[in-house]
Amino acid sequence: MSTDFSRSEVPEVVVSRLPQYLRILNRLMEDGITVVSSQQLGEKLQVTPAQIRKDLSYFGRFGKQGRGYSVHDLLDRLRQILGVNAFWNVAVVGVGRLGRAIVNYPGFTPDGFHLVAAFDVNKDVIGSDVGGLMVHSLENLRSVVDERKISIAIVAVPVSDTQEVVDQLVACGIRAILNYAPIIPHVREGVRIRNIDPVLSLQSMTYYINTSNDD
Amino acid sequence: MSTDFSRSEVPEVVVSRLPQYLRILNRLMEDGITVVSSQQLGEKLQVTPAQIRKDLSYFGRFGKQGRGYSVHDLLDRLRQILGVNAFWNVAVVGVGRLGRAIVNYPGFTPDGFHLVAAFDVNKDVIGSDVGGLMVHSLENLRSVVDERKISIAIVAVPVSDTQEVVDQLVACGIRAILNYAPIIPHVREGVRIRNIDPVLSLQSMTYYINTSNDD
Repeated sequence: MSTDFSRSEVPEVVVSRLPQYLRILNRLMEDGITVVSSQQLGEKLQVTPAQIRKDLSYFGRFGKQGRGYSVHDLLDRLRQILGVNAFWNVAVVGVGRLGRAIVNYPGFTPDGFHLVAAFDVNKDVIGSDVGGLMVHSLENLRSVVDERKISIAIVAVPVSDTQEVVDQLVACGIRAILNYAPIIPHVREGVRIRNIDPVLSLQSMTYYINTSNDD
Repeated sequence: MSTDFSRSEVPEVVVSRLPQYLRILNRLMEDGITVVSSQQLGEKLQVTPAQIRKDLSYFGRFGKQGRGYSVHDLLDRLRQILGVNAFWNVAVVGVGRLGRAIVNYPGFTPDGFHLVAAFDVNKDVIGSDVGGLMVHSLENLRSVVDERKISIAIVAVPVSDTQEVVDQLVACGIRAILNYAPIIPHVREGVRIRNIDPVLSLQSMTYYINTSNDD
């Protein structure tokens, strides 16, 4: 795919908002809306219209002053930039209670993320079927990753095993990891990791609930 | 609780890191480590040591130049600031597949978040038991929230119902909401909302995987 901007120059916080733009634009498209203003996008994303204009300016010129953005053009560009026209094969490592919930989560497939393999170290579950996926031994990680062309892994193993599992995934060529364990694993440069941790989200809100008593 | 800083002056991005500090310091404490440097904290959080010093400077003076931070003092202060010495009663709204996984998630209780009530609109599940919680009709939201002193809600309902459920929660006095539906609901000022959306996290990584071919 050829692009006319340097990805490395785009701040990570802008990148993290792009999927939200995509989601909002998809909904506008479904509703038959063809033009959207930075004001409207800002309201939906809860950032300022100026921030919207700055975010999108990294990727080209999509709108005319005072006339708003073309939903179709912007959507097309963001899909290309984010690689969401592609399909991604995803492995889930760890099929305990959390891993099983992840395997059964209905939201991945419609957005092109196909869960194609599950792994565990527990001999009792290896070889069994979890939500339609065969559970492999972690010892077979490399061969399954190669064979199924897996580029993304979701990790749902106990905290004590997480760093080691992440290291194994990286060694097998995985470059994008979604981690559900409540730690922040280390990865080498060039590998991306995102951490899903509902407790951290809750704690960042109790900070504000606590506030009301003292200022 | 009395504090000697103005919470409103602390940037939201700093607040969002505080629970991560807490988690790391708890682990250091368990490992018997009493002093930690901004360098070490920076490595664990994957931000610069200068950023660590700036973050913590909002909340007082915890370290001496060149001698590191007292793990005990810092932990104590962060616990107080984040209100994590307290217990919080939490309601789960929506007990479909995702809601059930949330109710069964073992990570909330150890950190003081007690799931005390579940709600749904589906007559088939109202009155039944999900993971030890009685499922109430959403019509009884206000009385149950008052009675059980619920201050936080977790929302796991379909996209089409999410904004309405969030509005009902806010109307009942809930000021912190963790939303699992793939939209960003609107809330009035003074109410906090966090969105958990694994697909957005995955898409923010495919951006970078896509990168490798073109710069």
